[in-house]
Amino acid sequence: MTTVEKPWKVVGTRPVRPDGVDKVTGRAVYGADVRMANQVYGRVKRSPHAHARIKSIDVSKALALPGVLAVITHEDLPKVPNPVMPTIRGPIPSQWDQDRILARYKVLFRGHPIAAVAATDHHTAEDALDLIEVEYEVLPAVTSIGDALLPNAPLLHEDGLDDLVEDLFPEVDGRKGNVARLIEMGFGDIDAGFADADIILEHEYSTAMAHQGYIEPHNATAMWNRDGKLQVWTSTQGAFGIRDNLSRNLQIPLGDLRVMPAEIGGGFGAKNVVYLEPLAALLSKKTGRPVQLTMNRTEVLEATGPTSGTRSWVRLGAKKDGTLVAADIKLWYEAGAYPGSPVGGGARCALGPYAVPNQRILGYDVVVNRPKVAAYRAPGAPAAEFAIESIMDELAERLEMDPMELRMKNAAQEGTPRSDGATHGNIGAREVMQAVIDSPHWQSEKPRAEIGRGVAMGFWQNGGGESSAYATVHSDGTVTLTTGSVDIGGQRAALAMQFAETMGLPYEAINSLVGDTDTIGFTGNTGGSRTTFATGWAAYQAANDVRRQLEERAAKIWGVNVEDVNYDQADATIKGPDGNVFTFKELARRLPGSGGNIQGRADVVSTNVGKVGACYGAHIADVEVDRETGKVKVVRYTAIQDVGTAIHPAYVEGQIEGGAVQGIGMALNEEYVYNEDGRMVNASFLDYRMPVANDLPSMETILVEVPNPGHPFGVRGVGEVPIVPPLGAISNAIYDAVGIRVRDLPASPTRLLAELMEQKN
Amino acid sequence: MTTVEKPWKVVGTRPVRPDGVDKVTGRAVYGADVRMANQVYGRVKRSPHAHARIKSIDVSKALALPGVLAVITHEDLPKVPNPVMPTIRGPIPSQWDQDRILARYKVLFRGHPIAAVAATDHHTAEDALDLIEVEYEVLPAVTSIGDALLPNAPLLHEDGLDDLVEDLFPEVDGRKGNVARLIEMGFGDIDAGFADADIILEHEYSTAMAHQGYIEPHNATAMWNRDGKLQVWTSTQGAFGIRDNLSRNLQIPLGDLRVMPAEIGGGFGAKNVVYLEPLAALLSKKTGRPVQLTMNRTEVLEATGPTSGTRSWVRLGAKKDGTLVAADIKLWYEAGAYPGSPVGGGARCALGPYAVPNQRILGYDVVVNRPKVAAYRAPGAPAAEFAIESIMDELAERLEMDPMELRMKNAAQEGTPRSDGATHGNIGAREVMQAVIDSPHWQSEKPRAEIGRGVAMGFWQNGGGESSAYATVHSDGTVTLTTGSVDIGGQRAALAMQFAETMGLPYEAINSLVGDTDTIGFTGNTGGSRTTFATGWAAYQAANDVRRQLEERAAKIWGVNVEDVNYDQADATIKGPDGNVFTFKELARRLPGSGGNIQGRADVVSTNVGKVGACYGAHIADVEVDRETGKVKVVRYTAIQDVGTAIHPAYVEGQIEGGAVQGIGMALNEEYVYNEDGRMVNASFLDYRMPVANDLPSMETILVEVPNPGHPFGVRGVGEVPIVPPLGAISNAIYDAVGIRVRDLPASPTRLLAELMEQKN
Repeated sequence: MTTVEKPWKVVGTRPVRPDGVDKVTGRAVYGADVRMANQVYGRVKRSPHAHARIKSIDVSKALALPGVLAVITHEDLPKVPNPVMPTIRGPIPSQWDQDRILARYKVLFRGHPIAAVAATDHHTAEDALDLIEVEYEVLPAVTSIGDALLPNAPLLHEDGLDDLVEDLFPEVDGRKGNVARLIEMGFGDIDAGFADADIILEHEYSTAMAHQGYIEPHNATAMWNRDGKLQVWTSTQGAFGIRDNLSRNLQIPLGDLRVMPAEIGGGFGAKNVVYLEPLAALLSKKTGRPVQLTMNRTEVLEATGPTSGTRSWVRLGAKKDGTLVAADIKLWYEAGAYPGSPVGGGARCALGPYAVPNQRILGYDVVVNRPKVAAYRAPGAPAAEFAIESIMDELAERLEMDPMELRMKNAAQEGTPRSDGATHGNIGAREVMQAVIDSPHWQSEKPRAEIGRGVAMGFWQNGGGESSAYATVHSDGTVTLTTGSVDIGGQRAALAMQFAETMGLPYEAINSLVGDTDTIGFTGNTGGSRTTFATGWAAYQAANDVRRQLEERAAKIWGVNVEDVNYDQADATIKGPDGNVFTFKELARRLPGSGGNIQGRADVVSTNVGKVGACYGAHIADVEVDRETGKVKVVRYTAIQDVGTAIHPAYVEGQIEGGAVQGIGMALNEEYVYNEDGRMVNASFLDYRMPVANDLPSMETILVEVPNPGHPFGVRGVGEVPIVPPLGAISNAIYDAVGIRVRDLPASPTRLLAELMEQKN
Repeated sequence: MTTVEKPWKVVGTRPVRPDGVDKVTGRAVYGADVRMANQVYGRVKRSPHAHARIKSIDVSKALALPGVLAVITHEDLPKVPNPVMPTIRGPIPSQWDQDRILARYKVLFRGHPIAAVAATDHHTAEDALDLIEVEYEVLPAVTSIGDALLPNAPLLHEDGLDDLVEDLFPEVDGRKGNVARLIEMGFGDIDAGFADADIILEHEYSTAMAHQGYIEPHNATAMWNRDGKLQVWTSTQGAFGIRDNLSRNLQIPLGDLRVMPAEIGGGFGAKNVVYLEPLAALLSKKTGRPVQLTMNRTEVLEATGPTSGTRSWVRLGAKKDGTLVAADIKLWYEAGAYPGSPVGGGARCALGPYAVPNQRILGYDVVVNRPKVAAYRAPGAPAAEFAIESIMDELAERLEMDPMELRMKNAAQEGTPRSDGATHGNIGAREVMQAVIDSPHWQSEKPRAEIGRGVAMGFWQNGGGESSAYATVHSDGTVTLTTGSVDIGGQRAALAMQFAETMGLPYEAINSLVGDTDTIGFTGNTGGSRTTFATGWAAYQAANDVRRQLEERAAKIWGVNVEDVNYDQADATIKGPDGNVFTFKELARRLPGSGGNIQGRADVVSTNVGKVGACYGAHIADVEVDRETGKVKVVRYTAIQDVGTAIHPAYVEGQIEGGAVQGIGMALNEEYVYNEDGRMVNASFLDYRMPVANDLPSMETILVEVPNPGHPFGVRGVGEVPIVPPLGAISNAIYDAVGIRVRDLPASPTRLLAELMEQKN
């Protein structure tokens, strides 16, 4: 790794993102904007029941409706030969992935797809749905963790009907039930730790299922050609992940399958999952036409992947001086209808900010009759860290310590063991804590007595993985940089900036594009706070590849040894012996005549080239509680974060603000409300209460820059950790304001008012 | 260059082309199939006059028509700073390229664009055209070479109005007139040569302006974003050429301009020219909407680029034994409205099959009030070689020699000087001539006395130039190969085959795609018979780049030196020391986990890596002439050609058959017929008579393979030369049948009947 020499001219500036104008003028092509000649439209028939056996499906009447071109059911999915696929959350039977896409024996959540229709227009397709006749045997719905864990709870995945349960589900309390997976982490001697403690606190916490709330609903457009080649356009965080899933579920070789990522109107983790894509593909295969499907908001809420509702139990032991000595944690996370909650993320991160010598963390992945959860920004971390940050606040109070002093005393640092068995590398936990202490907000007096102030930390380990970059040098000295990273938070800019800096070129000379699965090498999804880090590495390497080729070309033109020619990033020149020099632009102009233009490329797996830098954040919240209504108003909010190096500070701040707002939503309002039939009763944006602009004060952000030594520009992922601290910060602030510890989130007006009434009595 | 080891497993086979099924099922996306959200449609206002001054243009009434969104005229084109652009046919003022796109001072041909309209639908745009008021001062039209060269001919490009004439037009016969360029080639002592001759023949010949006759009319769709970035979709032979032209004419940096080649329904040279693209772009800029324009057939015939009508004069001297000693040739080619006929091609190729020690060739580029000509398959060669092949036939008759014996005696070979000053490399002229002599057709008796048989040679030097390739290896062992070469004659297949052969992989494992100007490095157009040669080189080099990286990866996995690891093309394995071996598929599967997937790339300029191989063809035609109607019926036809190596023999045969049919069209029927006002009176496919299937016998093709030593697979371009011999072969056959030497083509029934009547009298 050659570190690109400072002073940087591009990194750290705030240029306009290349997709910005397109997006604000409505010109960007989102998935629903894709148009093809002879395109037709599809709709999905979904289960009205949360839990039922499918006895029969009759599509004949729907097929007879004029304008209907095709109907598909589970029967149209090819058999998947390999029954188990590895995922980062453990092995999942491929068959269950198909069952989720189109229900087979049972429906396991309201909104579960049963069939899909393609018709000449959207309305005809919609009308056809009612003509599909499904006979169900309705079963009792299990929609909460508590109900799912009851000894006599109805089982979602039954032995006999589905023998995969036998192989995969662990025994819990002597039986196989609705716990799909049990994970365990920790080290030290937990009993000795607690024996050594001067003070032990023990509490239970819970958080609610919440949706990412992206504005753009899911969509897919597919064209399955007669020669077996399939093209799919979709709004996704990662075209390659969609491709690999479709390849498996539809049994198509990767070379015959091209996935084109459309612009994406928000993902936050949930647009890595395949929903409509295989349906569009199968409908296109049957009709011979391009087929487009889009969801409405109710479908998005009921039938895509929110994050888990959770329960947790924490026991924490400390010495009188505040030194943590033991932690015992149990986490139960809703997986939804199929296994795979982010309980592992919760377990890994719960104690991330701290050094705890004796710790044990148990995590339970619990299936319930709700949609299968998907990733949501720092998946699993907010709930687990909420519990720890709440109990830390209580501990500080009990020890009569300043909460930041307690945290600083126990702060993790390089060399501290992590819960997952790894060891912390170069991290900025202490720097972030110090920045909190030094911050204008923390230093300030509370403006009024009735205002409460809370603080909480957040930890996320960040991701790395595989990324590619491809650059083609144009003869006028402009360069097109293509990467496989879908642009959600300004990636086009952040990647072009790293490329430009490495080349010593102005940002404006770089045309930054997102490729598809055929025009760029494999690249993991835009998620896990990996993109600016890992694809940035690829951009940096592709620039170095271009630089090397420019040196070779100049050497050839001058007739000298390539060793004597050097690309000088400082002024983007190629310098040879005897005072020979080309500017980049001069040499670009000479490329066609001297052997051809130049293509640069890079394919990196981050672990092979550098080291992922973990990320810490801390948020300070001032809140005011309306004692008449239970409504919490956030009056001041500061987010402090170690961002490694802020490649584009404005977009880093944007990520931090956006994450914080989502966390505040989880803390105060957002939740899936189910009735006894297993129906979500608030499945619209009118009823599902997300924070809007006038709910919040202008947010202060403080960027702490502890460069990641594992990256040429010191990049750490920044996008996920900001969703973690708000839950603790807000609930600690509520306690400070009204003396009520809210251990069950969201602290909605209803819930808080009930607590306030109780307090009053 | 490493020659890929034989026996080849893929090269020489006849797999199905990847775009085949798409094209026959109507699923391929041609330019007119492009759809975008909010797309609007445009039409072009064209001149009804062949020659006129524009006094005023008033678009106000058109703009007032409901549904009309924008109107553009020449005023909307930005000023082009650099007045002269180099082209392969000499320097052309950039301003004239703009004037051709949208007329400024004058209209110079019927159909010359004056303005363009964008409206919500095609019909409204069409209606608006009549509301655009143009005041003309009509000038006399000059539509023939004869008229253009008259001393008092009206001048298309007048001094004073356009001072570029002063700088560019040569003096001919003491004045600057309608001759835009004069070229001269040759060597030896022409006078001494003729003095040494035993026999001298001298004749004049002519051919008619003819259109390429591609089925798909021109089209363009453009989206000019508010941030200045422009995307254009168009059916073209070369996206990069379109891009470079638009960059100059619209003054946009290359990095801001992306041209996406749609499928193309035939080009034959003429779809390298920009017509509708800048209009669509400017209309999109004005409307803020995607704009699509398409031509109808009359527009295609009247206002795109056919090939030149020509006149030629040939004087040929030979010894009694048939040895050619001197040739003096003058060629006049119609350029159309702006300079740039292919007279240079005619001059270079006229004597290409032969060694003539003393030769002089003069070429005149003559502007006339017809559409500016464009390239058409072996541009310029058919007319010039027709003259030579006719006179050679006459010479053979006069010397009482077999026409093939005469040709063989004078055949060019390696080392023979070429008219253009170069020297012939490894060529197959003699092998082709011998193949004619040995062919079943030539060996056969004519089936009936009234049938005439003719033979003629053809030469084309073929092209090279710059090409890129990019390959991404998928983890399941399939590979996507992207090149910048638009697929007209099966390039996707021919390139994938060379890639597959170099890798030792089956053809089916390669997904062969055409990239756009951002997703692949610069690649010249699909034309000049360069693609299978030059882009084939790039595919070969990209495969070698992948092989090298696979060796490196295997060495890394095995922990051995890369020098000890070899990719074995014979069985697509990677072999290391100690019996270590990976199949390609095994290693592909291990790539993601061992450092990432692999991208291969290559950017070649053919002159840097190999040597273009020139191409010879010879055709034998048997014809029957209906003495009552003058109609010529081709009853047997054999095309023999040195194809170097036939990568995909079926597509090589297809190229040969297609070229021969177009040449037969030129020989027998095709011509632009103008009236005295300069209007083409046969501007439809009903009146412009192209050969159709039942005009022709099943064609015999004989592939001679003299591998080009300058290419790893021995490829020579094959697409152009087959259009050259038919003109001579048919006219020589007509002479053999009825004793009439047709020196003015086409030998249409009208013309031949007149000659037959004269012969009879």
